[in-house]
Amino acid sequence: MIGDIFLTGCGQTKFGEWWQKSLRDLIEEAMSAAIADAKISPIDIDAIVIGNMLGEALSGQAQLGALTSAMLPHRPPALRVEAACASGSIAVHTACALLESKRAETVLVIGAEKMTDADPSGVAAALMGAGDSEHDTPSGLTFPGIFGLIATRYMHEYGLTREDLSLVSARHHENAASNPFAQFRNAVTPQAVSDSSLIADPLRLLDCSPITDGACAMILSRTHRSSMSLRASQIATDSLSLTQRPTITSFASTRDAFSRACEEAEITREDIAHLELHDCFSIAALINLEDMGFADPGTGIRLYQNRSADFSVNQSGGLKGCGHPVGATGVKQICDIAKQLKASKQQYGAAHNFGGAGATCCVHILEHTTNP
Amino acid sequence: MIGDIFLTGCGQTKFGEWWQKSLRDLIEEAMSAAIADAKISPIDIDAIVIGNMLGEALSGQAQLGALTSAMLPHRPPALRVEAACASGSIAVHTACALLESKRAETVLVIGAEKMTDADPSGVAAALMGAGDSEHDTPSGLTFPGIFGLIATRYMHEYGLTREDLSLVSARHHENAASNPFAQFRNAVTPQAVSDSSLIADPLRLLDCSPITDGACAMILSRTHRSSMSLRASQIATDSLSLTQRPTITSFASTRDAFSRACEEAEITREDIAHLELHDCFSIAALINLEDMGFADPGTGIRLYQNRSADFSVNQSGGLKGCGHPVGATGVKQICDIAKQLKASKQQYGAAHNFGGAGATCCVHILEHTTNP
Repeated sequence: MIGDIFLTGCGQTKFGEWWQKSLRDLIEEAMSAAIADAKISPIDIDAIVIGNMLGEALSGQAQLGALTSAMLPHRPPALRVEAACASGSIAVHTACALLESKRAETVLVIGAEKMTDADPSGVAAALMGAGDSEHDTPSGLTFPGIFGLIATRYMHEYGLTREDLSLVSARHHENAASNPFAQFRNAVTPQAVSDSSLIADPLRLLDCSPITDGACAMILSRTHRSSMSLRASQIATDSLSLTQRPTITSFASTRDAFSRACEEAEITREDIAHLELHDCFSIAALINLEDMGFADPGTGIRLYQNRSADFSVNQSGGLKGCGHPVGATGVKQICDIAKQLKASKQQYGAAHNFGGAGATCCVHILEHTTNP
Repeated sequence: MIGDIFLTGCGQTKFGEWWQKSLRDLIEEAMSAAIADAKISPIDIDAIVIGNMLGEALSGQAQLGALTSAMLPHRPPALRVEAACASGSIAVHTACALLESKRAETVLVIGAEKMTDADPSGVAAALMGAGDSEHDTPSGLTFPGIFGLIATRYMHEYGLTREDLSLVSARHHENAASNPFAQFRNAVTPQAVSDSSLIADPLRLLDCSPITDGACAMILSRTHRSSMSLRASQIATDSLSLTQRPTITSFASTRDAFSRACEEAEITREDIAHLELHDCFSIAALINLEDMGFADPGTGIRLYQNRSADFSVNQSGGLKGCGHPVGATGVKQICDIAKQLKASKQQYGAAHNFGGAGATCCVHILEHTTNP
């Protein structure tokens, strides 16, 4: 990073089913909470970046930058960015560039998604926009299907069992139980995961993150200081189509974004005390842990079997427990890391967010200093 | 701007109806042309920003950053931005921030839209995403309807006649006749504009920019020098809903973005030799000229009645003559200004691009130096 970028405040809606709230309502609620948390005046905001994927498809609403800007008295410059389920973290990345470029001193970043007003088949079709519309979508694939293929191959290569895999979602639900903003605060046993409805073999209902409404906002600033600062913001990409990858049990974009982020922050993975990673489906959590080097290939499950006191994974509940309002997730992960670092008094945490099956990956590293 | 940002190369598809080409094909064609024009190696590109509005709605394709990145051997970081019809210029703005932040030395910017595969009512519905889905869309408004209301009010306030207004599109068609990339290269008389089918009273078919496929790309660089450099990149916003504005015959976002851009470039409007402005509908051209101060309120038509040798407006043919593939237009306007400055050997030109009815406006100022 060029200079310090402080995470000055965070705010979010509870994630869940908000039939009585529109996309605009969710944005406004998260924005107001972040401004209050940051203790700044709204007119301190020089620019707005909003991450959203499905506004046009599910709410008939594009141009969310202008929509959000009109909520502030001085209507600052605003734009919307999109990289499917990584839209939120890409918004943070864009805000970093605006701050580093000195075009802004203080930026409001929002991630927001309104998904539950549409029927599930409509949502599934819209989400396939994150896939390859020429090469994969015509085969009838959906994202549960794509990650079902990935899980099948992973089980074949590494011998992961159905019982092993069920531990991932059970743990994420357990973590979500203590998160007041999570969609699902109920504990589920691994057996309940294994027994839930089959969605896309071998993935079952409780392997899949849900359809969720929600928004999360943050204030990033060069001038309004705090004990939390961004140390790295890195994007990497991969082919949209699974057919164009050498393997489907490793995500090149996760490897690239994470290694570049550690390099930018000048830390190693051992320095990271808290990690929020993208568990859109349970199998993705394991692969992402391996691609970031926290486990060897095929052994990611051990981090769920043997918990470490020094390193937490998806302490918030992850996408499975918190819900996954796609554009909001990447912003929320970073805010959760900040909460965790404050509580544990540790120094470094990382947020890993990807789009589709990892065609875009964005990793942020946050540093907590006790003397800001 | 922080330091020099050079416009190192441009490339575009012909704008038109490309039934045999997909969104991906259009992107690849424009990208290749820009790289060839810039005489750089593809691996010199550090980042990609793509502006697009309708990928999800009309092509089932989101995550266009990753899609485009996969066309290059080294898959640079990439993201998509959106601000409705201003998506292209917002992409240029985002690229400026990436360059000024030193996150990139050379950025590929693309604007692309694939519109003609859908039926016109589907396109009109998707375009209403640029409006206010809670306040205006439920009234049955479409964009021709919105600009029809604006034109009616303007005629009432200023006494503009139907015959006056017809001159705008006639001139844009005349200009497009010499642009090999324009969708419509046929001259039309003002009478033909007045006689064309009624679309949304008082606007007729030939007052409206068409539905178009096309892409335009540019290479912006801090290190690959050229005689063209960006001197300003400014965004301003306004309410999405017409009902929340004090007037509908003036666009606050145009006024704000243009004045901020002149301030950033340290020039006055008199320094501008060539202007490409957003004439999505004929009436918009007149209002935008007035909001930028090139004419007094109600007198924009005089710039069409009395042409100036020192100042050109939409020499490319504008959105009416060139076609308006919405995400591509903002990129194309800047490339056209570069061509015009090279040909005329003048110093400054400006590109004005807006989203919806001016809820987002983005203005760029380009400087041509003969000794780069």
